[in-house]
This record gives sequence, structure tokens and C-alpha cells, in this order.
Amino acid sequence: MAKSGRLSVAMVGTTHPGNLGAAARAMGSMGVARLLLARPEARPADPEAVARATASHAPILAQAAVHPDLGAALADVRHAYAFTVRRRELAPPAYAMRAAARRISRQLAAGRDVALVFGPEQEGLRNDETDLCDAIATIPLARARGSLNVAAAVQIACYECMLARAAAAEPPPKDGEPPAAKKEIVSLLAHLDATLQEYPVRHPSLRARMMRRLALLLGRAKPSSADARMLRGFLAHLDRRRRGPPL
Amino acid sequence: MAKSGRLSVAMVGTTHPGNLGAAARAMGSMGVARLLLARPEARPADPEAVARATASHAPILAQAAVHPDLGAALADVRHAYAFTVRRRELAPPAYAMRAAARRISRQLAAGRDVALVFGPEQEGLRNDETDLCDAIATIPLARARGSLNVAAAVQIACYECMLARAAAAEPPPKDGEPPAAKKEIVSLLAHLDATLQEYPVRHPSLRARMMRRLALLLGRAKPSSADARMLRGFLAHLDRRRRGPPL
Repeated sequence: MAKSGRLSVAMVGTTHPGNLGAAARAMGSMGVARLLLARPEARPADPEAVARATASHAPILAQAAVHPDLGAALADVRHAYAFTVRRRELAPPAYAMRAAARRISRQLAAGRDVALVFGPEQEGLRNDETDLCDAIATIPLARARGSLNVAAAVQIACYECMLARAAAAEPPPKDGEPPAAKKEIVSLLAHLDATLQEYPVRHPSLRARMMRRLALLLGRAKPSSADARMLRGFLAHLDRRRRGPPL
Repeated sequence: MAKSGRLSVAMVGTTHPGNLGAAARAMGSMGVARLLLARPEARPADPEAVARATASHAPILAQAAVHPDLGAALADVRHAYAFTVRRRELAPPAYAMRAAARRISRQLAAGRDVALVFGPEQEGLRNDETDLCDAIATIPLARARGSLNVAAAVQIACYECMLARAAAAEPPPKDGEPPAAKKEIVSLLAHLDATLQEYPVRHPSLRARMMRRLALLLGRAKPSSADARMLRGFLAHLDRRRRGPPL
């Protein structure tokens, strides 16, 4: 299995030291340790930042990498998700947070580094910054014009990513044999149709409805190749009996 | 349809005014407007609280009801969820946040008032306070000994409740006719078994395996009563043909 990619939070142009600290605590609580700072206005060593991070998560601030711009901060990153509420004319594809988290967990599992990118408190990300990101992530809000505190957005994003990674780490549900190929289903339905031709019904339309019911049942039952062979074996037996002497 | 219940956030013994304001903004962003304060140490009118709420959500603080204790704050509430990380010997049943949100959305849809209850920043809820709640909600954390800022916990809780209510408001998936009663399936399987008795197999164990395959297929197909009748009609036809002259 490939080595898992690293998940980072990139904060761009953050102006309030308290938000840096609160974001570090939000990240740490959800197991995200790598903080990238691009053109920060606030210093990660500011006492208010350190206090808000709490002793448990202050190391995240101390180890944060400071970069002059987002491009430098994302140098090693393969996938970047821009968090923005502003609608833009030209923009990368947008995903609601929960769907974004599932994508991110697959990208990390494939060994690729991923960054969650958050803009300055007032202005949000610039267009040239969202253009560096290959996707937009949106956190649903009760009202379209509201906005989250940046550390609150970091909290929800890291929470969703942690849950998505935990869900992906669970073994896939055991559903036994893989479903048959569609061509096997088509043959089985054709065989069923031929067998049904001799079923005595008052109206031909009833036979057509029976076929639809059988097709829908098979669609839900998702027979495996072995199931399909077994059913066709049984139908072949009926055929032989019809053609041969009665039992 | 019953009138939907009200969702409230109850904050107990909050000491930091900034946390009151941040919680109000977190609530408002997710459409929760009712804030109940029990034995608060910080004043909701504190300038830091008002600033952190932002102008959009300051009305939540202004309209917050202040009570001397949690019992008074929850007077009209039917279901209360205590947010706590501390393990207690005697405690109400605990739900992970996402499962709790699904329960809460059903309780609100049934017209019952629900409160999310958050304790003081340092000490958390007292036992007599969790005992007033009929459930514990836990927000998953990366490390068992970590803790969230109280406003961050309010943010995640309100976000999960908003998403669960939105999902519940969608029309239920159309899966057509309801599944047949188990007794219909039992009769159908018995009929199939009788029909299979005349199927020529080398080993009786093969017939038993075919029956298991058919039973599992039916379990996945979830036939409706009409499907079950149709299948039994077809089997009855095979029976008649076997007993009567060959076609």
C-alpha cells in the first residue's frame, strides 16, 4: 500500500492572531498537524495566538511554515481545496464539504499531499489564489450571505476530513461474490423471457409486466456469476423437461 | 404535519465572553437562533462577546435568556444532549455527534423542543447537570485526551444538526412497493424448495446450496407482495405442467 499523503491547512493573509491560534487548536483536535502560512499579517508567535492554541496544540503554531505567497506555501502539494463563499465567474469545480472530504480521503490514501486553503478574514482568497487550487470546497450555511469565522471553518473542514478518513479506513462491507457482468444478466433475462413464453396468461401485456417485475427483482438481487449460472441451469432443466418426456 | 420543535443551544457557566460571541456566530451560521444561558460567568452584553458574534449574529446574544441554573434553562425542553468528553460511571446513553444529529432531527420533526448543552470551559458539566440530560453527545477527536474550544463544539454540533435536518427534509427515496411480509417469503422459499426437488443433481448437497443461493438472492431482491405472488404463480404453473400432460 502506498504511503498516505499529508493533509495540511494553508492560511492566507490571516490578520487576527487569535484566529491563528484557534485554527491550530481546531486542527490539532482533529489530528491535522501541518500548518502553512502564506503572506500572514498576524505572527504565529503572538501571545494571543499561542494562548488560543492551548498548550496541547501550540507546537502546531511553532512549527508552522511561513511563506511569502500561496504558491510557495503549496509548493509540494498535489491537491488544494479553496474555501470560499464568494461566487466567481471562472472557478475550479466546487464540492460541498462532506463530498470534498470523501475525495480528500481518497487522494491522501493514494499518497498525495492535500491542502485545505483558507483566505483572509475580511477579503477572502484572491482570484489568483483560488486559481492555484484545483477545487473549491463549500461549507453549507443556513443563509447564503452568512460567513463563518475562519477558525470555525478550519474546525468543520478538519472534522469532516477526520471522519471521512476513518470511514475509508474501515474494511469495505463484505457483500460476497461480485455482481455478474451485464451480459450475463442480459442472457439470463432472455432465457427467462423464452421460458415465460409458455406461461399461460390471458393478456400478453401481463407477460410483459411479469418480465419487468423479474428484471427489477434481478436488478435488486445483484446476482453473482455463479448465481446467474445456477438460475440458467434451472431454466435449461425446465427446457429439457418441456421438450422431453414428462417426468 | 406537526409543528417542528425548536432547537436551542444551552451554555452552562461560560467564563469567557469571547466564547459566548463565537458560539452565537456559530449558531447563527447554521440557522440556530435560540441561546439559553445557565449560571453564566460572562455577560452576553460584554463588548468582546458582541464583537465576536459579528453584527449579523449579535441579536442571538441580545435575545439570550439568562437562567440561574440548567434546570431553569431547560424548563420547556423535551430532549437535552449533554456535550462532554469526561467518562462518567453513571450516565445517559451516549451518541457520536452524527448519529445524535439524526436523532435530534427526528425529535424536532415530531414537534419536540431539543437543547444542545455545553458546560464551562474548564470544568465541563457537573454530574447533576448531565443527569438532567437524556443523552450524551460526543464529538470525535483525534486523541482521547484532547478537547475542543466550546464555540468550536457548538459549531460542529449546529452544522451536523443543520445537515441532518436538511437530509430528513428530502422526500424519502422512492423504492416502489413495500417488501413482502416474511411469511410470504417463507411460503415462496418452501414452494421453490418443492420445485427444486425434481431438479436432477448429482449430490443432494448441491440442491441445498442452490436453495441457499436462491434464499440469499431473494433477501437482496426484497420482493414485494405482488412480486412474491407472481413468482408463486409461475411455480404453480410448473407444478401443473409436471402433473398434467406435457405441453
